[in-house]
Amino acid sequence: MELRIGLLGLGTVGSGVVRLLQTHAKLLEQRSGVVLRLVRIATKRIPGWDRGFDLGTTELTDDVTRVVGASDIDVCIELIGGIHPARDFITTALQHGQHVVTANKALIAEHGNELFALAQQQNIELAFEAAVAGAIPIIRVMKEGLVANQIEQLYGILNGTCNYILTEMREKGLPFDQVLAEAQRLGYAEADPTLDIDGIDAAHKLAILAAIAFGTPVAFHDVTVEGIRHVSDLDIYWAREMGYRIKLLGIAKQSAAGLDVRVQPVMINAHSTLAAVDGVFNAVFVQSDFAGSSMYYGRGAGEKPTASAVVSDLVDLARNLRSGARQRVASLSTQPQHLRPRHCCPVEDRTGEYYLRLLVRDRPGVLAEIATILKNGQISLKIVHQHQRAPMEAVPLIIVTHETSEQQIQAGLKALSELESVLEPPRLIRIEHLGA
Amino acid sequence: MELRIGLLGLGTVGSGVVRLLQTHAKLLEQRSGVVLRLVRIATKRIPGWDRGFDLGTTELTDDVTRVVGASDIDVCIELIGGIHPARDFITTALQHGQHVVTANKALIAEHGNELFALAQQQNIELAFEAAVAGAIPIIRVMKEGLVANQIEQLYGILNGTCNYILTEMREKGLPFDQVLAEAQRLGYAEADPTLDIDGIDAAHKLAILAAIAFGTPVAFHDVTVEGIRHVSDLDIYWAREMGYRIKLLGIAKQSAAGLDVRVQPVMINAHSTLAAVDGVFNAVFVQSDFAGSSMYYGRGAGEKPTASAVVSDLVDLARNLRSGARQRVASLSTQPQHLRPRHCCPVEDRTGEYYLRLLVRDRPGVLAEIATILKNGQISLKIVHQHQRAPMEAVPLIIVTHETSEQQIQAGLKALSELESVLEPPRLIRIEHLGA
Repeated sequence: MELRIGLLGLGTVGSGVVRLLQTHAKLLEQRSGVVLRLVRIATKRIPGWDRGFDLGTTELTDDVTRVVGASDIDVCIELIGGIHPARDFITTALQHGQHVVTANKALIAEHGNELFALAQQQNIELAFEAAVAGAIPIIRVMKEGLVANQIEQLYGILNGTCNYILTEMREKGLPFDQVLAEAQRLGYAEADPTLDIDGIDAAHKLAILAAIAFGTPVAFHDVTVEGIRHVSDLDIYWAREMGYRIKLLGIAKQSAAGLDVRVQPVMINAHSTLAAVDGVFNAVFVQSDFAGSSMYYGRGAGEKPTASAVVSDLVDLARNLRSGARQRVASLSTQPQHLRPRHCCPVEDRTGEYYLRLLVRDRPGVLAEIATILKNGQISLKIVHQHQRAPMEAVPLIIVTHETSEQQIQAGLKALSELESVLEPPRLIRIEHLGA
Repeated sequence: MELRIGLLGLGTVGSGVVRLLQTHAKLLEQRSGVVLRLVRIATKRIPGWDRGFDLGTTELTDDVTRVVGASDIDVCIELIGGIHPARDFITTALQHGQHVVTANKALIAEHGNELFALAQQQNIELAFEAAVAGAIPIIRVMKEGLVANQIEQLYGILNGTCNYILTEMREKGLPFDQVLAEAQRLGYAEADPTLDIDGIDAAHKLAILAAIAFGTPVAFHDVTVEGIRHVSDLDIYWAREMGYRIKLLGIAKQSAAGLDVRVQPVMINAHSTLAAVDGVFNAVFVQSDFAGSSMYYGRGAGEKPTASAVVSDLVDLARNLRSGARQRVASLSTQPQHLRPRHCCPVEDRTGEYYLRLLVRDRPGVLAEIATILKNGQISLKIVHQHQRAPMEAVPLIIVTHETSEQQIQAGLKALSELESVLEPPRLIRIEHLGA
């Protein structure tokens, strides 16, 4: 018995998949009971072809229709990325009854619902383990391992680029721009790093996890997103002083008020398990009602880890093929007719401690002025620290609040930013006390 | 569609399963598409019945044949534990074509191969997620999430009782016996703690993980086992001094020489991820060729976490039922005909650093005598420390070696133990430099 595979896209991950299927052909057959045969690869790159491996009997084409909708292909692996033309290719493949395996988090986050509906209608699979957290099998963990649980909350370090930048800033004491430039040079960050450093990539992944965790359709546009562009070396310094570390976290929580789903740089206890996840690693911490606290840690990206996830989906399809299973597990774990859109907590509902960084003119009375505004806004202060002394010059002022509400802090920030002695928009980092 | 469930045993975990099935009846149906109906519970405890829940339509019986082999039961959950009579019950259930879900690590480790063969022959499932690491879905992770990888090595903190004892010894500076007594009082250790503290429980779990990881039949009797009975507060002190922590680790590695599978108290880097796993938590670190390093962390035992694992297996069966799948995934991931017994590395093949603790008579020349014996055995020393001074009294002597072989160290220990001034058998703890 064989599973006939077509591959779209032969970049880094595509090459990893080819290499994995070649390296472990026998192992995969012994584990699945099926031959995983890579029939054909569609790529634009044929002229510059040099991936350092022999393709054997696999054909190479620049004609995508020889994969998508081709009658000799059972499953299309989509590794092109982005919305267009990936969305059309996947739609066409599903319409032709081909299973699809994808690593495309943007597409699943933004158009997953329509694609899942199509796959269900066609009685085939749209598998996406590789779309979230690379080698960590978090999709399977959520859909199968923790299936008997109501998920209460979930925290994830979901973007390796941001985690690498924040780790380097902390370890080397360097400013954001310099670390970003170095990350780009090393290939850890894209030439256009927006998707990563503005938190969008993490939000794509979080939207997918939240949908599975809470039994809702994927709702990417409900995710509150803030990136790490404004995290300064001074923030890193202060986090350390206070026993915290700054991480870009995806947070999804369910409460009586609704779902709270957001990606934000936050300060977390430096001794927590997630704080120890450094560099390009990802981790997801899950709190659920029966399993309790659990955590999943591994490489979040890269050729080999992502290939591992893609091929785990292929093996799943192979095992389904062999055992005659179709649509064994619903795309988002919950049967589609039971998925329910959930009310999102208004962002202003958050309460907690806040770290603020202001740039102020160092003149008599400025502290009193600021303290009065915060007091009038009923924001109680834990730490106020003027970072340097330089009469009449611009100096940073650090403030840490006691527990307060997002609404109060935002009103306070607005009032502060209107002060003449406050020289740039105040920056804010939330302090999160995780169970992790 | 419904899955008709029978339960054997209504102790802690059994009660947890009943509670979970009741609490999440609707959630489980929405996720699986099948009603999970607990038809009947067989238990000896009927007279003393008081579990604090209403059984609804579930029947209670003390007649095991009303569950095992009963025509109105599709799946038997075995939560009796131990080899007898669990083995007979499971065998009978499988012979009658009933699926089996079990948390029985001893049974799977010692008789899994025969039971898997029977399940295969009957074209049904014997599922055992709950047998290893409680709520951590490590069996699924190994069989499905990491299926595309050659596993290189695996380290696990697999026994919560031992981890709790070692954590308490470290945090409170108390001796082993006192912490064990307290753990027994709190219910974290059994009245007869042998299975836990002598490493046998961890070895059962490791044998199962190693079989899946390396594509071999389960080979419990090939596991080298050493428990934590001889770990002293002085060892804990010295581990801390040297930047290590002592953990009871299950270690399974594949090398050209064969499989190295052992459970031992070892010293690991205090800053490693596994070192931070404290108390009753379990964790498994896996190194594989494509996914790289990954780690899985959670509660290793207890009513609710184990129930979570048992019910995840039930949902799996329900999803199979609904989708028509049979034997979708082989019991040990690799198709049975491809499982291969592996040569085990002789224990003496290990090389590494060793920590030794001797009790010696504090008299002139004793250090020279010991140093000479080790030098003659080609064991090079990194640290030698006499812990107290008490002329002519018994005092502890701590020795840490440079890299040496197990064979050399064992020969050295033998020679040392024959010295008149060495007053009790020397104790040894291996130092492991993990990638974790």
